[in-house]
Amino acid sequence: MKLNTRKTLVLSSSDVKRIVLETGIDSMMALTIESLRKNLLDLNVAEIHIPSRKGFSYTTPTSGLIEWMPLYKSGDEVLLKVVGYHPDNARRFHLPTIISTISVYDTQSGHLSALIDGGLATAIRTGAASAVASEVLAHEKSEILGLIGCGTQAVTQLHALSQRFDLERVMMFDVDPEAQYSFEDRCAVLAVDIDFQISSIEEIVRKSDIISTSTSVAIGEGPLFADIETKSHLHINAVGSDFPGKVEIPFGFLEQSFVCPDFIDQAMVEGECQQLALDAIGCDFAEAVQNSKKYEYVQHERSVFDSTGWALEDKVITDLLLERALELGVGQELSIENMPKDTRNPYDFFGDNVFQIDVEKIRESIDPADLL
Amino acid sequence: MKLNTRKTLVLSSSDVKRIVLETGIDSMMALTIESLRKNLLDLNVAEIHIPSRKGFSYTTPTSGLIEWMPLYKSGDEVLLKVVGYHPDNARRFHLPTIISTISVYDTQSGHLSALIDGGLATAIRTGAASAVASEVLAHEKSEILGLIGCGTQAVTQLHALSQRFDLERVMMFDVDPEAQYSFEDRCAVLAVDIDFQISSIEEIVRKSDIISTSTSVAIGEGPLFADIETKSHLHINAVGSDFPGKVEIPFGFLEQSFVCPDFIDQAMVEGECQQLALDAIGCDFAEAVQNSKKYEYVQHERSVFDSTGWALEDKVITDLLLERALELGVGQELSIENMPKDTRNPYDFFGDNVFQIDVEKIRESIDPADLL
Repeated sequence: MKLNTRKTLVLSSSDVKRIVLETGIDSMMALTIESLRKNLLDLNVAEIHIPSRKGFSYTTPTSGLIEWMPLYKSGDEVLLKVVGYHPDNARRFHLPTIISTISVYDTQSGHLSALIDGGLATAIRTGAASAVASEVLAHEKSEILGLIGCGTQAVTQLHALSQRFDLERVMMFDVDPEAQYSFEDRCAVLAVDIDFQISSIEEIVRKSDIISTSTSVAIGEGPLFADIETKSHLHINAVGSDFPGKVEIPFGFLEQSFVCPDFIDQAMVEGECQQLALDAIGCDFAEAVQNSKKYEYVQHERSVFDSTGWALEDKVITDLLLERALELGVGQELSIENMPKDTRNPYDFFGDNVFQIDVEKIRESIDPADLL
Repeated sequence: MKLNTRKTLVLSSSDVKRIVLETGIDSMMALTIESLRKNLLDLNVAEIHIPSRKGFSYTTPTSGLIEWMPLYKSGDEVLLKVVGYHPDNARRFHLPTIISTISVYDTQSGHLSALIDGGLATAIRTGAASAVASEVLAHEKSEILGLIGCGTQAVTQLHALSQRFDLERVMMFDVDPEAQYSFEDRCAVLAVDIDFQISSIEEIVRKSDIISTSTSVAIGEGPLFADIETKSHLHINAVGSDFPGKVEIPFGFLEQSFVCPDFIDQAMVEGECQQLALDAIGCDFAEAVQNSKKYEYVQHERSVFDSTGWALEDKVITDLLLERALELGVGQELSIENMPKDTRNPYDFFGDNVFQIDVEKIRESIDPADLL
């Protein structure tokens, strides 16, 4: 993939949507699932550096959080996704709960090579992560999917999981009746032949083979349910746990389950793993995928994928989107950064600009192959 | 200041230059100095949260560093400056050593409200910081300014300091003769009536009243000079120290000096303060400015402003640039982020778009005053 070394490719939300439309939403999801699986299989921790995300959280003017998720691939790029999480956004501003952008920096020069809306990308990669994890940990004959929380993430949970499991029924619940009742309509585009059933949380927990929880349950107000009897192989994708003090799954269920966090360091701080000691954790996401035979027995036991959201997943979808953007010619190339005619002169814009053309020529005459 | 709550104001390098031109470079520098001083005087640490910056550093494909500098002002915005530092940029790509962008996020919704080129902004605010610190710590009759390192930062060091001191002579040195010899020409726009003199480091250290060091000395290869005799009131603005293992000032000089870091936590890791124990540090920047009377005696002693670069300085220049951009109508408003007609539907772009107009109307009909 060859991004411009001078300009910034901006992929707005409309651009990302166009890429997904041109690719087909099913193909895009399938590509993301397959690429994530491959990236996990090939993961080289000496090459990909992912510190835990950090951020600012606050309760005024509204309850919210802005955090940044960095990733560095040696010799290649730095990715920085900035995520805003503001549960009141829909009510207050008619905006999604999660607003985010992904920035890509060239480690040759520090140049911002791309800026991409992260809304749809986040929803797709979060769905894909659940599909990859569930394929290892959930019962392969899973037919009933429970969804607790029927927002944006629930749509892509169903989308991703329906590609890997022969689902017959979706049971869904949301504290907001409108979210619950509109869910089936929102899934019409998925063209899945599945029975949609509005349910109580209790019924979902009792009957599902796989559950995905993606709620905005407030800090200190979780878990979403008490210790209810479940199928002995129930697998839960806990998607909404992403903040210190915020949990969706009861300790009693975690205790009986094989718990697999996407990223242990982060999950211990803000995932369901907050509730556990380190030695109560099964293994992490990459380990599970790399050793799927070893963990096949988990398919017959209770399990939890503690999906806090991992920068590697963002890298996977970012790479796919950028590759398709370059193929399709989608996006806008902007000159944002300072590239002065005299690199040592901050005030080079004073006086005439006649040298600008010459310098552009010099730049274009540089063969990147000579530089390596 | 009222930024668009839906669109992202992009101020490219050209836009920033236009703002600075329209404002006048002298006025822009004077405004930055004054605003930084005021922000330091008014600094409320319960309101402005600034964690130490973090980043990735590497030696392949080239020696470099990409780091992020976050700032959160309670109830207002999050600022995230991302800085690339690649000393070989000029030679390899005809690009500046420092490439950076500043992002501003609305803490009401998480929306990216602005994206600003940080090149010129960084140079101006770094100059301004030295002027503010020197005004407290340097001899008020300082006439000779020494510059070790004659790149971009040196120009704004001279610019800023010339506004606060009656400078008669600039003595300059750079390991690169071209940087050294072109420096006077690059400063022509400053219209300062000063004698420029190419000098050795030793001569600069012996004769200067104030020195600003802004070099790309490699890790482990500093300091820039040995313990040479100096004027008893020499004040040094150590601008280039910004990386673990990178130092410009000899321990012997620091030991004899009142050392004032911009941000102690950060300076202990990557500034000159790496060489010192915590109890050998005089006070930090804000403390010095807030209690300038108390520290007036330092003007007659040796002192060092350990300027690692602080997010508060970026906030000051960002606020100034955005305010001027809105006044002048400079910059480009882009729709980058996902603002779907159905906030719960990631695939809302499937099918027709007839609802889009209605939703825009709904959004516009929301009175922000109702929301607070």
